[in-house]
Amino acid sequence: MKYKQWEGFETGFWTEEVDVRDFIQKNYTPYDGGDDFLAGPTKATTKLWDMVMDLTKKEREAGGVLDVDSDVPSTVTSHAAGFIDKKLEKVVGLQTDKPFKRALMPWGGISMAVQANESYGFQVSDRVKEIFTKYRKTHNQGVFDAYTPDMRKIRRSHIVTGLPDTYGRGRIIGDYRRLALYGTDFLIEQKIKDAELIDGEMFEEKIRLREEITEQINALKDITKMAASYGFDVSKPASNAVEAFNFTYLAYLAAIKQNNGAAESFGRTSSFLDIYLERDLRNKVITEEQAQELVDHLVMKLRIVKFTRTPAYNEIFSGDPVWATESIAGMGLDGRTLVTKTSFRYIHTLSNMGPSPEPNLTILWSTNLPEGFKEFCAKYSIMYSSMQYENDDIMRTTHGDDYAIACCVSPMKVGKQMQFFGARTNLAKTLLYAINGGVDEISKDQVSPRFEPVTTGDGQLNYDEVWMKFNNMMKWVADKYVNTLNVIHYMHDKYYYESAEMCFYDTNVHRFFATGIAGLSVVADSLSAIKYAKVFPVRDETGIVTSYRTEGDFPKYGNDDDRVDQIAKDVVKIFMNYVRSHFTYRNSEATMSVLTITSNVVYGKSTGDTPCGRRFPEAFAPGANPMHGRDCTGAIASLASVSKIPFKHAADGISNTFSVIPNALGKDDDLIINGDFQVSGEIPEDAKIK
Amino acid sequence: MKYKQWEGFETGFWTEEVDVRDFIQKNYTPYDGGDDFLAGPTKATTKLWDMVMDLTKKEREAGGVLDVDSDVPSTVTSHAAGFIDKKLEKVVGLQTDKPFKRALMPWGGISMAVQANESYGFQVSDRVKEIFTKYRKTHNQGVFDAYTPDMRKIRRSHIVTGLPDTYGRGRIIGDYRRLALYGTDFLIEQKIKDAELIDGEMFEEKIRLREEITEQINALKDITKMAASYGFDVSKPASNAVEAFNFTYLAYLAAIKQNNGAAESFGRTSSFLDIYLERDLRNKVITEEQAQELVDHLVMKLRIVKFTRTPAYNEIFSGDPVWATESIAGMGLDGRTLVTKTSFRYIHTLSNMGPSPEPNLTILWSTNLPEGFKEFCAKYSIMYSSMQYENDDIMRTTHGDDYAIACCVSPMKVGKQMQFFGARTNLAKTLLYAINGGVDEISKDQVSPRFEPVTTGDGQLNYDEVWMKFNNMMKWVADKYVNTLNVIHYMHDKYYYESAEMCFYDTNVHRFFATGIAGLSVVADSLSAIKYAKVFPVRDETGIVTSYRTEGDFPKYGNDDDRVDQIAKDVVKIFMNYVRSHFTYRNSEATMSVLTITSNVVYGKSTGDTPCGRRFPEAFAPGANPMHGRDCTGAIASLASVSKIPFKHAADGISNTFSVIPNALGKDDDLIINGDFQVSGEIPEDAKIK
Repeated sequence: MKYKQWEGFETGFWTEEVDVRDFIQKNYTPYDGGDDFLAGPTKATTKLWDMVMDLTKKEREAGGVLDVDSDVPSTVTSHAAGFIDKKLEKVVGLQTDKPFKRALMPWGGISMAVQANESYGFQVSDRVKEIFTKYRKTHNQGVFDAYTPDMRKIRRSHIVTGLPDTYGRGRIIGDYRRLALYGTDFLIEQKIKDAELIDGEMFEEKIRLREEITEQINALKDITKMAASYGFDVSKPASNAVEAFNFTYLAYLAAIKQNNGAAESFGRTSSFLDIYLERDLRNKVITEEQAQELVDHLVMKLRIVKFTRTPAYNEIFSGDPVWATESIAGMGLDGRTLVTKTSFRYIHTLSNMGPSPEPNLTILWSTNLPEGFKEFCAKYSIMYSSMQYENDDIMRTTHGDDYAIACCVSPMKVGKQMQFFGARTNLAKTLLYAINGGVDEISKDQVSPRFEPVTTGDGQLNYDEVWMKFNNMMKWVADKYVNTLNVIHYMHDKYYYESAEMCFYDTNVHRFFATGIAGLSVVADSLSAIKYAKVFPVRDETGIVTSYRTEGDFPKYGNDDDRVDQIAKDVVKIFMNYVRSHFTYRNSEATMSVLTITSNVVYGKSTGDTPCGRRFPEAFAPGANPMHGRDCTGAIASLASVSKIPFKHAADGISNTFSVIPNALGKDDDLIINGDFQVSGEIPEDAKIK
Repeated sequence: MKYKQWEGFETGFWTEEVDVRDFIQKNYTPYDGGDDFLAGPTKATTKLWDMVMDLTKKEREAGGVLDVDSDVPSTVTSHAAGFIDKKLEKVVGLQTDKPFKRALMPWGGISMAVQANESYGFQVSDRVKEIFTKYRKTHNQGVFDAYTPDMRKIRRSHIVTGLPDTYGRGRIIGDYRRLALYGTDFLIEQKIKDAELIDGEMFEEKIRLREEITEQINALKDITKMAASYGFDVSKPASNAVEAFNFTYLAYLAAIKQNNGAAESFGRTSSFLDIYLERDLRNKVITEEQAQELVDHLVMKLRIVKFTRTPAYNEIFSGDPVWATESIAGMGLDGRTLVTKTSFRYIHTLSNMGPSPEPNLTILWSTNLPEGFKEFCAKYSIMYSSMQYENDDIMRTTHGDDYAIACCVSPMKVGKQMQFFGARTNLAKTLLYAINGGVDEISKDQVSPRFEPVTTGDGQLNYDEVWMKFNNMMKWVADKYVNTLNVIHYMHDKYYYESAEMCFYDTNVHRFFATGIAGLSVVADSLSAIKYAKVFPVRDETGIVTSYRTEGDFPKYGNDDDRVDQIAKDVVKIFMNYVRSHFTYRNSEATMSVLTITSNVVYGKSTGDTPCGRRFPEAFAPGANPMHGRDCTGAIASLASVSKIPFKHAADGISNTFSVIPNALGKDDDLIINGDFQVSGEIPEDAKIK
């Protein structure tokens, strides 16, 4: 073996080159028992968590932000080591030198950083302002320098919303486990070997990649320095569980010190770390209490990840979530479950420290999961309302058994696949544009080229005409949307490359180009109304259709009625194909999500009345959900409608937020149901720290 | 007319869109008379020049650099207005706020800037060092982050030399006349229109170009501010000659405040500015004395352009030339001469202020130039040894009649063609590599892959074998060379884009990918020796060929002998075709120069003994020159050999430095002959200020 730190592990491909999955498969211990082995919190855990809760209270009292660094732009090595209470912490590392002191991150956009700080009463220093205006161009500046007038228009009119052009794109999950398993010496060595193979004709893609590898190597060197400041030598592999936990977290910490992406997910670490715990338990180096304490302290750190966001950002995302998503469980390709005792331990943090929206504990659900684990999940879901479920049986077929969820629903093979995050197109608004020939129903601006509006005047809308025009408008908006994203991701790579995340990726990474749609149920119901009932446009004095009068009933999405569900399916497929028809930056693979757990309210505010009967500014249904109250034929029918949406054409995930009233299940609390389809549960507002 | 400033000019295409050539063609006054109209220096000119000479003396006494800004990185607007003597200066504008105070230019590379300053006893501030290491990446850093091991090797071994990876590439000539003719309002308006047409599928090239246009517009806005600090409103066209001279110079000043490229040439301005002088003279607004004074003051400003260079740079370029080349005369496509009275006035500065290496006064020579002008040029060449001649009759066929020379021999249509400067490959060393299978004859390192060395042992070199192996080695080095340049120019665009030059270019610019070769006559003579005499290798103890023994005589390049001249021609064509076989960044057009006026000495120092009998470290002949002393059949034969080199395969220029002893022409001074072929004259050392 190359490293004595690997003693006790079974060898494999992983000992010769980076292959964490191989290490896991050869070394993990599946667990099909119950939760009776779990330990409660240690005194240290309780004391630390009390300190965190105290700081949380102070932060709330201070108006949302307790402290911000105003003069040191955050980098992997920008700050000295910081602690909550050094003596008590088993897993160490803070984003700055003090807990709850937020980092200054101007790389994405200096005016954003200034604005975010000012909205909480803090000032960015003149020095930093000068550097990031005169000398260092930001991602945001690059994007706006290249935007076409059309791109500005679709953005301003909110037909496309939430584009990552004023904030970091996120949705990249470094394989932080690699730091624990290999250490930076080995990882740097591998990166140098990779770089040697990028030779020959120097097309721009190769030049960029070569430069990126150097940036990655520099990041690994910085991580070594940063970890040393916390007393850990990460140049070599972790030699025990304490080191493995700390190394994995410090790798993630480097990522969030460098990047403040919209979702900074953690990966799929529980069964990996379980191997280290098992070895130490076997060697009687630690006890169950100590094992749980490590898990608790790691999770505690993930709970207090914080960025400074602008009020506009918080409005879109209904708060300032980090989406430090941790993916747990799932089944292996060989049929063994990937549930380990540490899968239980992660979830058990909800009991030891109370519920929390972060980390976003995500169960990769399979019908084949061990019964003991299923029951445990159900119990904790009911008790804490803080878990999310995703369909492992679907995703395993496309993503294997070492993928993780970024943000809420985006699956990617850990360390092998990343995504260019694309927020989403408002398809409900797209339908209104089709009816008005591209005139915005709210601003009355001509946003698209002057397409022909519907020709039926004040008469009944003709389904075939609307459908044809909606298709044209989807084609137009997909074009502008994809090309806007091309600009954004080109600039993000140019001005805000995530070297501290990408250094934990394979060099030849697979890139998804992750688009998204919002308002699917509004569109489906509106088209159904036009087709099956009678819908008459209501025009304002200038002739623009601003509302609709509907006569008669029509099938509504969410009732397992193919007449309308088929419309939803078609829309997803057609829009996805329009997206696919375009060049996507770095030849990435176009995907789409039917998503928005939190921003459905904002979408509603920017969309006029819709033919389905929804009235401005009523919120959309979240994600792929039926519109609230319209799924009136039972839970199963509602879920069946959602499950018809083809994952093939929405491979970035389909989200369904599903609540059932307690009595229906005979329980006392709201819960998030676990389903056998691709689904992400919403975190109830009341479970959030803030 | 759009602008009252254009009154008195004949209209044309130029009044509707940017077209300086059209303006010149419709408005200039060809002049075929003599030099009798010229005026001497005004008192102000003499006084100012004395002050410049005084500062020059002080600068020399101070060790080469009088003062450097240590804390304000140079930008178009970084410094307050500076003057030599505000009351006396008719053309204003300095690179910083004081004459002879050099600007701090860290964008190309902070360590270069620090090193350059330190070598003259100055310190770059810690503030700037921090900004350009922590926050702002430089061109130099980008390049080295992407270089492959092979690229580092060819660079270190000096088989490729002078690559613009530690300094700005230069060789871009903004059409500075545009500022005078149009003003920034018009130019910005046109750029916005151009940007609107870059739409559709957002491939990276389009995104980059859109961003660049924004940078150009920002530069135009900055130029407006900078000019205002000197009391000129450049938002509108120049209304008289004083403004036209100042606007044109201020546009150039912006370029050299932003960029410290290896050659920052001025363009082709004399006959353009003549139009303004003629109008003012016609309107009796100015006198001939005032006209000459404007020219003198403009030229004075071009004479004192200064950058801080490193000793290494100065060694390559034998000093720190700016190559503020101004191209004068030539013939129009319609048969009229482009000589105007101001062509005379520019050259007359040599009399009014004495000889000077800058600006590099370059005569675009045609057999059809007016006799009066030809005689004037001959007279001033003999008197001042400070003029360069280029073959307009050749270049007019490919570049039209509004091109200018960048640096010494690179022609480009003003405002329409730019180049990615590529320094050059040492072909003599390439031949030695062919013989030794890619082992460097000096360092003994294996630089290329292990190609087969010559197989004749200590016996006579076989021409066919050497020729075949030289071809292979040229192919290998062309590959590495072109791809190294791809990296350099990608990074230059990324980290050091010349917005203040490119804003005076058409948006859809034609880009040359300008490679170069050195040591042509050494190669031709060496191959001729192997073919026509007997050449035996001399090996060191390890078997590496380090010298050559030659028996018998052989034809030498420079004697109009086709046996060897054909070899030179073939080598040029073959190497150029190997260059052409590769991808060139931004789909630029590959060209080549047979050049090096100044660095032939350095090339000699890095090249071992050659089969032609040249001994290490003897200098190469400059450019396409025959080796010194070997062209022994007369001047015409020497020139005839050079003139055989096909411009088609060396379209970036062929340079010949030609000196004749005074008696041969019955004159008293060394002179630069003017020839009817593409040729650039060397500036004698003794004519240089420093």
